[in-house]
Amino acid sequence: MTLSPTTRSTLGRKSDRAATDRADLHAVLDAGLACHVGFVRDGAPVVLPTAYGRDGEQLYLHGSTGARWLAGAELPVCVTVTHLDGIVHARSVMHFSMNYRSAVVHGTARRVTDAGERLHALRTIVEHLTPGAWDHARRPDRRELAATAVLALDLTEASVKSRSGPPSDDDADVAADLAWAGVVPVATVLGEPEPGPDLPEHHTVPDHLVSRVHREG
Amino acid sequence: MTLSPTTRSTLGRKSDRAATDRADLHAVLDAGLACHVGFVRDGAPVVLPTAYGRDGEQLYLHGSTGARWLAGAELPVCVTVTHLDGIVHARSVMHFSMNYRSAVVHGTARRVTDAGERLHALRTIVEHLTPGAWDHARRPDRRELAATAVLALDLTEASVKSRSGPPSDDDADVAADLAWAGVVPVATVLGEPEPGPDLPEHHTVPDHLVSRVHREG
Repeated sequence: MTLSPTTRSTLGRKSDRAATDRADLHAVLDAGLACHVGFVRDGAPVVLPTAYGRDGEQLYLHGSTGARWLAGAELPVCVTVTHLDGIVHARSVMHFSMNYRSAVVHGTARRVTDAGERLHALRTIVEHLTPGAWDHARRPDRRELAATAVLALDLTEASVKSRSGPPSDDDADVAADLAWAGVVPVATVLGEPEPGPDLPEHHTVPDHLVSRVHREG
Repeated sequence: MTLSPTTRSTLGRKSDRAATDRADLHAVLDAGLACHVGFVRDGAPVVLPTAYGRDGEQLYLHGSTGARWLAGAELPVCVTVTHLDGIVHARSVMHFSMNYRSAVVHGTARRVTDAGERLHALRTIVEHLTPGAWDHARRPDRRELAATAVLALDLTEASVKSRSGPPSDDDADVAADLAWAGVVPVATVLGEPEPGPDLPEHHTVPDHLVSRVHREG
């Protein structure tokens, strides 16, 4: 299935930066820690950072039932996940840029009400944040579940955009040798796990955390 | 001046996570590389990552005049900058969380038309991305300026929210010693500058880049 089935998810500019493969969309989403969810309230846009998780072609979001934006049964949203990969230094100020990968998903999120799907969604979100964690922690109880709203968003309508590589300078600026030009890499890294102050000393850092820090950090 | 002069920027939930000092807002904005700008198109929300810069109580955005979202003289927006600081591992899945700092700015961005302010805005954006760069690169020419749209947004209406520290587990879960609990730090780091493939060998990495990588990286 190709991405971008509608005009709003078809990139108007720099379409050479667009990916059309669904695997690219999944890769960008899976590599992120938090997304930015946009919605309309009282006619004006609102953008909030939040956790998320993906299962197949569904994106799950969650939050407190007390959060105003999670109150309805349906919510038109735009969910964007962005990775910054580098600061691009050019010979001219207008060619300064960033290397990045971003996914933009448009759609109407539906409130998940089925108990089984709600639990699956919460597991998906926690496992996205920290793979392997769900099986080591207490599951949600009835009170916690009642206080939690879960939204699901189909990945039907989405676009992926990225930039990589060195600056794209004008030939004349390269020839004039005006300035240093290149890329300063940017990365999101995980540090060494810090045990909580009330954690008994017999605990060691669990394997699923050790391997992740050493792989991604 | 306090933040949050309107109901939409007054936090409804977890107001203990809200900062009310304008210096906190500036600090979160100044520490970011990219923002997520939200706007409404055809009644639906759109969220895009983009560069920005701050000068006093003004936030500047820019883009190609060919970008659809930059076409009007005024645009109601929400600009959000988020820093992820840690993945919070709790004894129960519903207390998993993230440590973060985020700033959310609401308002109507105005198209900047004055030539002097436009140049100042572009300088502010480039210097935000990479301090010290503006003076080393070619300034925009008439053609480049004509192809560039600049927006300004007052920082009047904004909120700042953050979480830090260890997990907030239920007492019973702590007593039951259910799982490892603590924080995996998350950081955005800058790597060693990578010269472009067509950069003459006589260039060394400029001082403003060396000092930044070693300070932030």
